[in-house]
Amino acid sequence: MASSSPLDVSCPTPSGAYERIVLGHGSGGRLSRDLLRDVFLEELGATQLDHEEDQSSFDVEAGRLAFTTDSFVVSPLFFPGGNIGDLAVNGTVNDLAVGGATPLRLSAAFILEEGLPVERLRTVVRSMRRASVEAGAAIVTGDTKVVERGKADGLFITTTGVGMVPAGRRLSAKNARPGDRVLVSGMLGDHGIAVLAKRDGIELETEVVSDTAPLSGLVEALLAAAPDARSMRDPTRGGLASALNEIAASSGVGIELDERLIPLRTQVRAVCELLGLDPLYVASEGRLVAIVPPESEAAAIEAMRAHPLGRDAVALGTVVDEHRGRLSLRTLVSGKRFVPMLAGEQLPRIC
Amino acid sequence: MASSSPLDVSCPTPSGAYERIVLGHGSGGRLSRDLLRDVFLEELGATQLDHEEDQSSFDVEAGRLAFTTDSFVVSPLFFPGGNIGDLAVNGTVNDLAVGGATPLRLSAAFILEEGLPVERLRTVVRSMRRASVEAGAAIVTGDTKVVERGKADGLFITTTGVGMVPAGRRLSAKNARPGDRVLVSGMLGDHGIAVLAKRDGIELETEVVSDTAPLSGLVEALLAAAPDARSMRDPTRGGLASALNEIAASSGVGIELDERLIPLRTQVRAVCELLGLDPLYVASEGRLVAIVPPESEAAAIEAMRAHPLGRDAVALGTVVDEHRGRLSLRTLVSGKRFVPMLAGEQLPRIC
Repeated sequence: MASSSPLDVSCPTPSGAYERIVLGHGSGGRLSRDLLRDVFLEELGATQLDHEEDQSSFDVEAGRLAFTTDSFVVSPLFFPGGNIGDLAVNGTVNDLAVGGATPLRLSAAFILEEGLPVERLRTVVRSMRRASVEAGAAIVTGDTKVVERGKADGLFITTTGVGMVPAGRRLSAKNARPGDRVLVSGMLGDHGIAVLAKRDGIELETEVVSDTAPLSGLVEALLAAAPDARSMRDPTRGGLASALNEIAASSGVGIELDERLIPLRTQVRAVCELLGLDPLYVASEGRLVAIVPPESEAAAIEAMRAHPLGRDAVALGTVVDEHRGRLSLRTLVSGKRFVPMLAGEQLPRIC
Repeated sequence: MASSSPLDVSCPTPSGAYERIVLGHGSGGRLSRDLLRDVFLEELGATQLDHEEDQSSFDVEAGRLAFTTDSFVVSPLFFPGGNIGDLAVNGTVNDLAVGGATPLRLSAAFILEEGLPVERLRTVVRSMRRASVEAGAAIVTGDTKVVERGKADGLFITTTGVGMVPAGRRLSAKNARPGDRVLVSGMLGDHGIAVLAKRDGIELETEVVSDTAPLSGLVEALLAAAPDARSMRDPTRGGLASALNEIAASSGVGIELDERLIPLRTQVRAVCELLGLDPLYVASEGRLVAIVPPESEAAAIEAMRAHPLGRDAVALGTVVDEHRGRLSLRTLVSGKRFVPMLAGEQLPRIC
């Protein structure tokens, strides 16, 4: 980010003197500096953000570095259980975690639409701080661009994370083997339905709240109990079906789920039925899918259930040596059906 | 990125079967996979992109890791001398380079507007490949989101880079000392004027071409000749004036430039005069600003001039013990004036 200039006090801008983002906030000049000081440094903390250089640097041990990035364009920006800010932090933390990496540092790049209320941005950044502290990975570098009104939709955030993978740990989508068990850490689809309900004004008797959460603690707990775990994913965009199709394809195995065992809230099930959505494709943002050898199933489930984010953990399927590269579902009524990758788009802008 | 699924051939999409980006390309499902295969893997190379996991990982030595991110929203997407793709790669490579870091790996996150012609995206991604090869830093992980027509302006790219800072190297905006010399590697403002002229349809007798380029080689050449260099910047958004104001503020020194020595092309000077722009605030995207001790000036200039990107290198100013935190300009006519941080926005969406 552009640096603040503590010595240049010729024309101070008092905090709060601007209520909406203007193009000048992306200029790299005085207004950029004010925004950095008044919002980013104020909310993230000057000790966290390395704000006087164009890059941040920190010491690392020799080892395997993990590196991941995601853009977030969720609409609306605020939804039950979270906002684009904690979603952006948790999403990137989780992509590190499911690779077995301990998150180290995060970056955050903002594309702001001219006219965005500064207080909305502040609330988002505050949530990012909270989420990054919870994940133990500080946001140390960033960027802000502003585009004209109508050229973006309020606010987009791209987060990138680096982490270290402990020696000997090699989780991979290629590692699943026939006989392995498929576990999930909790109820599926809460995030997607929470965003959808908010966006479309769907009134529910009991509100569905996003499950957005950082999974690194849960992953560590699971790996301590089941160090031979093969592969992990967070079933975000594209849902459980996409995550498992990818693992099946990468490992060259089939995966078979038992429909009765798929953990879904009543309201999530109801909204999906109402709108003709398949919950297997609906995004979660704080759930873990893990493939473990059968002998580790019990220990893995126990470890997950002992963690606050894994209380509803269940085994719901098995890796098989049939229909390689494909996911099948043993259903309540009709026997067995295949669950392919989603052809089109079921729920746009859910993350 | 979502993985490709080599085994799932139930419904292949022939390359080129879709001409424009649709929302489904951001779904995480089959269309996402097709786009990954047909554009990103095709242009970046499957060996470069780690496409079967949600993160990429690679071994690093113990040391100081540098980490930087930037979003790119340049308009228009294509301009003389480059496009948003090579700009996004070079911009992040340069933020690593000016910190003294050797670029290691890059990530790229795309926000696409529904309706974007796929061939435009392909051309951009191809440029990114070329730029990343030139910089020696592969693009190993990424993400793609799609927003509805009218919710973004064609294409935004966020690149993030990691690099290693060799032991003992501590370039910092805080290091400038009175007596140090201010060097630049070449003509200033070409990038900003190239984009502006294209956007506003300004006809020039001789076209101004963006200077976008990766600076890591030039930085290494300079540091080999002048290992005691204090600080470096690339004078991008906000131009030379912003870069030097930041160094002056961070180091608690004054900086004084000689207007006669500022290297500007005739056409850049002419466009600035025509439009009332101050060239000191106009962005370059492949120029280096370096602060070096006086005893290293000659060696640094010589090393830069021996490099293809530094042929027009000059010394144009001095760090002084006056007007601390501020930049001044000794002008041709009026003696001396201060050059503050830009108050508003001079050239929006130049990067």
